[in-house]
Amino acid sequence: MPQLRIALAQVDPTVGDFSGNAAIVREHTRRAADTGAQLVAFPEMMLTGYPVEDLVFRESFVAASRTALHRLAADLAADGLGDVAVVVGYLDADGPAKLGADADPGRGPRNALALLHGGQVVTTYFKHHLPNYGVFDEDRYFIPGDTLKIVRIAGVDVALTVCEDIWQPGGPFAVAGQAGVGLVVNINSSPYELNKDDVRLPLVRRRAAEADSVVAYVNVIGGQDELVFDGDSMVVAADGTLLARAPQFAEHLLVLDLDLPAATSDAVGDFGEMAVERLELAGDLRAPSGALLPPTVTERLTDEAEVWQALVLGLRDYVRKNRFPSVVLGLSGGIDSSVVAAIACDAIGADNVAGVSLPSTYSSEHSRDDAADLAKRTGLDYRVVPIQPMVDAFKANMSLSGVAVENLQARVRGVILMALSNQEGHLVLTTGNKSELAVGYSTLYGDSVGGFNPIKDVWKTMVWRLAQWRNAEAARRGETPPIPENSITKPPSAELRPGQLDTDSLPDYAVLDAILAGYIDGDLGRDGLVRAGHDPALVDRVLRMVDLAEYKRRQSAPGPKISIKAFGRDRRLPITNRFREGAS
Amino acid sequence: MPQLRIALAQVDPTVGDFSGNAAIVREHTRRAADTGAQLVAFPEMMLTGYPVEDLVFRESFVAASRTALHRLAADLAADGLGDVAVVVGYLDADGPAKLGADADPGRGPRNALALLHGGQVVTTYFKHHLPNYGVFDEDRYFIPGDTLKIVRIAGVDVALTVCEDIWQPGGPFAVAGQAGVGLVVNINSSPYELNKDDVRLPLVRRRAAEADSVVAYVNVIGGQDELVFDGDSMVVAADGTLLARAPQFAEHLLVLDLDLPAATSDAVGDFGEMAVERLELAGDLRAPSGALLPPTVTERLTDEAEVWQALVLGLRDYVRKNRFPSVVLGLSGGIDSSVVAAIACDAIGADNVAGVSLPSTYSSEHSRDDAADLAKRTGLDYRVVPIQPMVDAFKANMSLSGVAVENLQARVRGVILMALSNQEGHLVLTTGNKSELAVGYSTLYGDSVGGFNPIKDVWKTMVWRLAQWRNAEAARRGETPPIPENSITKPPSAELRPGQLDTDSLPDYAVLDAILAGYIDGDLGRDGLVRAGHDPALVDRVLRMVDLAEYKRRQSAPGPKISIKAFGRDRRLPITNRFREGAS
Repeated sequence: MPQLRIALAQVDPTVGDFSGNAAIVREHTRRAADTGAQLVAFPEMMLTGYPVEDLVFRESFVAASRTALHRLAADLAADGLGDVAVVVGYLDADGPAKLGADADPGRGPRNALALLHGGQVVTTYFKHHLPNYGVFDEDRYFIPGDTLKIVRIAGVDVALTVCEDIWQPGGPFAVAGQAGVGLVVNINSSPYELNKDDVRLPLVRRRAAEADSVVAYVNVIGGQDELVFDGDSMVVAADGTLLARAPQFAEHLLVLDLDLPAATSDAVGDFGEMAVERLELAGDLRAPSGALLPPTVTERLTDEAEVWQALVLGLRDYVRKNRFPSVVLGLSGGIDSSVVAAIACDAIGADNVAGVSLPSTYSSEHSRDDAADLAKRTGLDYRVVPIQPMVDAFKANMSLSGVAVENLQARVRGVILMALSNQEGHLVLTTGNKSELAVGYSTLYGDSVGGFNPIKDVWKTMVWRLAQWRNAEAARRGETPPIPENSITKPPSAELRPGQLDTDSLPDYAVLDAILAGYIDGDLGRDGLVRAGHDPALVDRVLRMVDLAEYKRRQSAPGPKISIKAFGRDRRLPITNRFREGAS
Repeated sequence: MPQLRIALAQVDPTVGDFSGNAAIVREHTRRAADTGAQLVAFPEMMLTGYPVEDLVFRESFVAASRTALHRLAADLAADGLGDVAVVVGYLDADGPAKLGADADPGRGPRNALALLHGGQVVTTYFKHHLPNYGVFDEDRYFIPGDTLKIVRIAGVDVALTVCEDIWQPGGPFAVAGQAGVGLVVNINSSPYELNKDDVRLPLVRRRAAEADSVVAYVNVIGGQDELVFDGDSMVVAADGTLLARAPQFAEHLLVLDLDLPAATSDAVGDFGEMAVERLELAGDLRAPSGALLPPTVTERLTDEAEVWQALVLGLRDYVRKNRFPSVVLGLSGGIDSSVVAAIACDAIGADNVAGVSLPSTYSSEHSRDDAADLAKRTGLDYRVVPIQPMVDAFKANMSLSGVAVENLQARVRGVILMALSNQEGHLVLTTGNKSELAVGYSTLYGDSVGGFNPIKDVWKTMVWRLAQWRNAEAARRGETPPIPENSITKPPSAELRPGQLDTDSLPDYAVLDAILAGYIDGDLGRDGLVRAGHDPALVDRVLRMVDLAEYKRRQSAPGPKISIKAFGRDRRLPITNRFREGAS
């Protein structure tokens, strides 16, 4: 039985950074070769980053991707790595981008994979299944491929596939099975969702069974605007055995030896409706050298740890990839801003985090104390800017009352944070949670001000769980828990008028979040929520709040997606919409 | 030769307002019947409004659409209109919404058309061609139909089609031609773009030739978030003769008598890959009564008139459909806010428009005078709120300099406008033009504050053309030109520091707009722009400004789309993107 030493490179490319992404491939191919790996696989759209959206329509962008691919092949050979087989995702095109009726249905941009070896692009494969739901719009951008590529490497037939190809039964994996391959490589840019790791392993197992073959699944990590990629790369045997699994949210090179069946079939042509092309890798293939440690199967994280790492990585990459030197946020002493501050300190270090207490006359003493306590616990750069003089200036020159005065305070805080951003170069972090965003419990251009919101997709009840988890984690490690206990236990308040509590305007968050999760994540309508046991009048009130808050959500800062239905790319609703759930 | 009296109802539905939209159908069917019309056609997705986006995924929404359709059929009969054949667009579904791998490929939501008669839904047709480019995402939402429906009405074979079906050759129109129909009805929700009327008539002519039949094309009017629909309904003979054409941007009932060939064929089954079903309208058809005036062919508007009407209708419908009582905007005396004020007065009446002069110490005397002059000319509600006391309060309590102080002024203005909105209930209008938005020449949460921006998609050079056109139009009508001549002729300035001019930061707008239009509308890259004769260094500078302003554009208010590439639904780019045009 032939043996093949493969490496899966779980790395973090940046959209549009062709030279940086190519450098990542060269560095990790070098590291893989140093372990004696013969075949190294990098993620989907490695050279461009993912998703590139309408950049697909720019000829110069497509040209840059193709140029980067051929340069990479040559550079790898110049690096002395020409004898390694390298699988890498990129953007290709065999015709102009499709634009409706004018499109050539058979030609256009392609979500492509290339096999590099000996300084050459040995073969390319175009993704068959283009996802066009949730955060994906690939029908808008790409033409699907229709041919499966099978490459004989060291006597083993290896089928090459891209991402969604693995989510669909009866596609390239089924044909790979009919064609009798020994290994299917599947390269991915598959975004994180809470518990998606529970979905992926059974999926890869089903496809390994369908292909009757080992499956090597490599996924990207990192943050890209609202998406976070969690890695979770793995290798699964034909019988479903999990042979190796990479950690989540971290760069990793997963290297292992595979005993694979020798290639026996030379059947080509059409398998059902799909064409199959075979080729044999010419030239020298690096010989495996030295012994490997047994392959690792990394344990999955708990829910809280997983979400925390997603938020940290999402923020870290947004800051780094957009070249911000530091962040600033308002610290109210409440749970949301405390959790965001702790995430920011974990992501980029407390030295790069400025926290500003912005007390008004309605701010309680404990709010100021809790903010100062948080600053002391984390070591972030702490300032205090009382807002009353500015608020008073507006009140003295305008006739304002009620909610206009409440919102004024939040907006003065927004102006101060933006002024600090302009003056000192910080990215402003927004700290509104998903429950607030859902019902519009925030001030437009006030507390919603900012460039990135780490907890945009986190329900309030999960914000509390995260705080408790992060503090316990610190205690476990013998470190100071970052979040003041009082910020976790006190009742939430916007403190925009005397004695105000969130529960004046909203139901208890445990009740609210259950309704919101049903309506938004579960697409339950009013009747479904009532059938699930919720109070009908409360359901009506909450649903109306959600429906009317669409404009605020449109104006909100991006943040890491951790749920199946994040506000943003995922969920697209008209602002102008008279439909009301439950109305007859 | 049989004669059929048809009516095309060019009307303005509201997304999600099932009862209101059904009431529009009943009212216009009554009016059409009063002229003796036998067949009345309403636009695509008439009962739901268009586009409904992710509302498609809500079962209660689909159920409401189907219920509204059947109720409408019964109500029309109860109105004594059961003998009129009514064609109407709605949302149907024969299975749950498709969600990737789990979808049943043959079942799901449908962009549907129904023929109502005698209190019944006589037949339904599902749109074949689903646009998935530009502002359209129909592959995400709908399953395509595969059957053509031909209904014999008063001895004439009438084929029923929806919108994109007319943009594609070789589809339902070709099969209608093979099946020998006498009339093709095509119902639309086709958004406005400058000069789209020049595209539509040749398109309808090509399809009339392909079907060898009269084509009745009915389109919707109105504003829906960023989209404006212009109507432009028309009837074209098989030989390309334009028989009738409705005005743009106005409700209209286009009624005419058509001499049509008697039906002769009964061929059914498959024409190529498409199934054809035939049926005959049973029961009484209303007889045409009385003589009609000759059909009208309304002249198209000039470019400036067309854009002006698009902006007015887009704003009017946003205000009306979202139930705002009034609007407020800042008046700087400059061209942008003056044009927006004039649009607002045309849209909802000067009584409902509040204009606020927000002078700083850097505001020139002429700026205040020009703002006051505009208020006097238009009759809008005028106030003055000097910003210096509030600006000084921030400066006294923070250490700010340079651009932080410049932006502070714009943000204080934003806070004042939002406070007036909270206090008095106005919708805040944003007044930044497309050129500014493209290069990021604006203050985030400052002059970009607001709920709707009438000139979001208008290049600065077009803003000037619109001002001149609107003033000339007033003069032609013997009215006071709304826009002060000085606002049109003075050099543009943000007035955020002494003596500041836009040309300190930007090239002359004629040069800038030419580069921007090439880059954005034309998808020309850096090299293409240089080949077109632009200065390479300037091109590099402008393209870099555009690429870096993506976040500001994401945060901008919606506004009516008038170009092929409006910022918003149309053009989807990552914020985090390291690709630079021209970089090697």
